[in-house]
Formats: sequence, structure tokens, C-alpha cells
Amino acid sequence: MFAVTILGNNSAIPTLDRHPTAQVVTCNEQLLLVDCGEGTQLQITQYRIRRSKLRYIFISHLHGDHYFGLIGLINTLNLMGRTEPLSVYAPPELEQIIQLQLDCSGTILKFELSFVPLLPGYSGLILEDKDLRVSCFPTQHRISCFGFSIEMQKRKRKLIPEQAKAYEIPAAYFSKLQEGADYQRKDGSIIKNDWVTLSPGKAKRYVYCADTIYDVNLLPWLKDADMMYHETTYLHDLEDRAAERYHSTTVQAASLAAAAGVKKLLIGHFSSKYTELQPFLDESRPVFANTDIAEEGVSYIV
Amino acid sequence: MFAVTILGNNSAIPTLDRHPTAQVVTCNEQLLLVDCGEGTQLQITQYRIRRSKLRYIFISHLHGDHYFGLIGLINTLNLMGRTEPLSVYAPPELEQIIQLQLDCSGTILKFELSFVPLLPGYSGLILEDKDLRVSCFPTQHRISCFGFSIEMQKRKRKLIPEQAKAYEIPAAYFSKLQEGADYQRKDGSIIKNDWVTLSPGKAKRYVYCADTIYDVNLLPWLKDADMMYHETTYLHDLEDRAAERYHSTTVQAASLAAAAGVKKLLIGHFSSKYTELQPFLDESRPVFANTDIAEEGVSYIV
Repeated sequence: MFAVTILGNNSAIPTLDRHPTAQVVTCNEQLLLVDCGEGTQLQITQYRIRRSKLRYIFISHLHGDHYFGLIGLINTLNLMGRTEPLSVYAPPELEQIIQLQLDCSGTILKFELSFVPLLPGYSGLILEDKDLRVSCFPTQHRISCFGFSIEMQKRKRKLIPEQAKAYEIPAAYFSKLQEGADYQRKDGSIIKNDWVTLSPGKAKRYVYCADTIYDVNLLPWLKDADMMYHETTYLHDLEDRAAERYHSTTVQAASLAAAAGVKKLLIGHFSSKYTELQPFLDESRPVFANTDIAEEGVSYIV
Repeated sequence: MFAVTILGNNSAIPTLDRHPTAQVVTCNEQLLLVDCGEGTQLQITQYRIRRSKLRYIFISHLHGDHYFGLIGLINTLNLMGRTEPLSVYAPPELEQIIQLQLDCSGTILKFELSFVPLLPGYSGLILEDKDLRVSCFPTQHRISCFGFSIEMQKRKRKLIPEQAKAYEIPAAYFSKLQEGADYQRKDGSIIKNDWVTLSPGKAKRYVYCADTIYDVNLLPWLKDADMMYHETTYLHDLEDRAAERYHSTTVQAASLAAAAGVKKLLIGHFSSKYTELQPFLDESRPVFANTDIAEEGVSYIV
């Protein structure tokens, strides 16, 4: 299971039906939170996300609509008795912001909270786990900002059941085959793993482009992604305003998706000035057909 | 017009239908915000509070459920183009918390934001305006915490229309009479103001007790208030837990209201463990009859 659940799809000023940016990425049994605008903890409750499975948090940049909800979430996790560690990947100043607030309230966390600083301009692998690999890359915004590339490791080889049966391998041994083991028969002969399984295939990849001006330099990070999220703060007619504020438009996001050859594009971070979102689709789809609005509460399979 | 509108009535962990503490006090044309838990800016939108009239914010203490929403509110006011000054009365560390977050996002406010530090243990007058007088007093909580006494100045004297007419004072002069002026007739004789008006009467007063353990030392601040808000985090059976966490119960809040001779009691800051609030009324009213639940979205006239 590799999916992205949208908790917020609005830009800076929240509205009653659109919240600031936050997304939960589900990688099998693990949950990752990407950005955490004000109210994220309530969206987590609203959409019945299992808080206890949350292990990693990625904060793209320190504009408030991407992180003001983090201190509240941390506080609530603590009050609810969390003991599992939690790692936050973020621009380095965030640690001070959070620690200062914990200190002022006399809060001593009952779980280990660690910060991994993302230094300005850094790109590369930041996390490798049994299920996933996460890299970050800088985007061009008004302050230091990062996108994230999240790859779910395909660890299990694909069993060819007919072959395994033909070699008389007992079904109880199949899960070992998927992990890559050979099989030794009673007569001592070896059945090589690759006679009865296929390679796991390519790992699936989701790329989150955070807040960014239209920037073709992102293409190497987007190339062939299975799903890509790109902001479309404005419709096409406000291209100049978008550039001025280091944001992007529908047509720009869709063009990048097309150039990168991704399979699917999610768009979000809509300016509060828009009450209707259909025009965002109407402008994006002619440029890149497989575009969807990042709708709050909806999970998109990568 | 002197009224209190409840934006949040829950304690630390917000729920889908109860938000952390925030109240708006309306004094004629001015709005005061008392505490500002996460999501307060959305509650302000939800209940159509006129942000532009907000001039003073009072933060009782630095537990997150009383201030995590402040940075988001300030940010939004700035994005909406506010230019009027805003004053925040709060424990001194709050200024650093807010300034750090503004700095990290490269935000330069377009309005004047000033902080008035409430030093541990301080009590006394902190604000006197044409319409109101606000004092603070320390409450006993786990960290430095303040209650607020808000008094609406009754500035206008009460006209006795029959008397004014009997002295042949023109109606166009009545507003001057209400401001305390004497009247000089054409023949030079003086009509003394107090022949035709009555004193403005006692100023109305609202007392907000913030988070506090049951504490009879608060009584001098509560005495004869027109309305008093007192937390009831727990029902009566959890009196021990309340004391341990420096919170109060229904019976304790109601007893204080009765002892202080206030006219009305509002209760709130309910623990998230309670899904039903009726038991809070059922326990409070036998001790102090004029008790109401501080219901979100409801305005209570002082």
C-alpha cells in the first residue's frame, strides 16, 4: 500500500472548507506526514489517520501555512501518551521554534523527538528505511524550501506459483522465496530463487514539489515519477503574480508533469481568493490529462 | 454592548466539535480576544467576528491550548493588509516565540504589533481605554498564569427627559448633558447637570479566571462581577485529579461563584475525555443556579 492522503490543499489564509498544506503518505504500515499547517491535528482526527503509526515528518519550509500545526500535533501526541520516537526533517530553525515552545510550557516529552536539519540548497538521500527511501531537493521559493521524493522499496520478489509447484516447493516456504532465498530439496539439490520468482520490479515513487516558482531545473527529480504533487496557487492569467511571489500556475505545473513524463499529477495550494476549483482542472488537463485536484480527505494510490 | 463570544471551550486536546480556549469580548465597537488556541482564526471566520475591530489580545499563560493559534492569526491579519496596531498582553516569553517565527518566514508586519509583558505574580491595572479597563491577577496553575477582569466604562450619564424638558433644554443638547455638561439658558441662568441627569451607574465587569486550581484567594477579584468565567476541566468525582493538575471541578467553580456573589457563571475548558456536557450543568447548578456552559459560537451579554 503506497498512497497519499490530502489533509489540506489551500495556500496561506485558511478557509472554512480548505485547510493549509498537509499530506499523509502511507507506506505499508508506516505513515509519513509531509508539511503540517495549522489545524493538521484536527484533520488527522477527522480523517481517522492512525497517529500512532506516524514516524517521520517532513517540513518543506518555514512559511506558517506549512508548519504552524506541528507544535500542536507534538503536544497532543505527548498528552496521548506516545512513547515511539518521531523524526522531523526540516529547515534547522524549526528545532529552536519547537523547543522554545516546549520549554515555555514546562513540557518534557515522553517520546524521543529528533530533528534532522535540511540545510539551504541541500539535495540527496535523507532517509532509508526498510520500506522507503526519501530524498530532498531545493525548490525556488522566497525562503529556503525543499521538495521530497518518496520511494517505496519493493522488497518482495514476485512468486511464479506454477514454477514453485512444479519444483515441489511447499507453500509454507513461499514467503522465504519472496525474500530471495533458494530452496534445498530433500535430495540435496538446490532450486535457485530466480527459477521460481521474478524481480520485484521498479520501486514506486511520489514526488512532492512543495512551494515553488515554475522551474525546469526540477525535471531530473520529477522524471518518470508515478505521482507528482505540484502547487498551482494561481490560474494561468495570474502568471506574473505567481512569478513575483515564487508560486506557480496550472499551465506551468501541467507542463512540468508532461515534460517529466510522470504518470499522474496532483495540484493544490490554491489561493484563498478562489472559491471554485474546477477552473484549475479545466486549465491543467488540456496540458496534462491525468491531473487531479488534491482533494481534502481523499487518498490517492501512487 | 458588552458581551462575550465563545470560540473554544475545550481543554488541551482539541476534538472535532470542541476547540481549545478562545473568547472574544465585545466592548461597544472594540473587540478583545482572550486566549487564542490553535484554530482560533478559523473560529473567527466561522462566527463572522470582525477581525478589523480586534485591538487587544490577552494570553493567560503559555500552555499551547491557550496560544498556539496566535501566530496564525497574526500572519493572516498581515496577509489581509491590516494596518491598525495590535497589542498583546502575555507572559514575556511569548514575544520571542512570535518574533522567532516571523523572522524565520522573512515576514515583516505591515502593522504595529506590541507586547505588554505580564510578569509572574503581577496583579493590577494593565489597560485603560475610553471604553474599558482591564486588570490582571495571577491564578495558581502549573506555570505562570493570569486571569483578567474586564470592566466596561459607563461613561454616559443617564438623562431624565421630563426634567430636561421642564427646564426647556433643546433635545439637540441632550448628548452634551449625557457627557456631564451644564446648560446655560438665554437669560444667563445655569441648569446644573445633576438636576437633569443621573449618574451612569456601576460599570459592568467580566472576570475570566483562566486555568486554575480551586483557589479562594481569587475571591477579591471575583466579588460582585456581572459575569465570571471559571474553568471546570473535570466533574466533581475527579477532584483529586483536578488538584494534581492545577485544574478545577464543577462544584469548585460554582462554590466560588456563590461565595463571590457574581450574577452569572460560565464554565468551560472541558477535558476531552467527556463527550457529554450536560453533567457539568447538572453538578454546577445546584451550587450556583445561574450557571451556563460556555458554548462555542454563543454570545453571552455581561
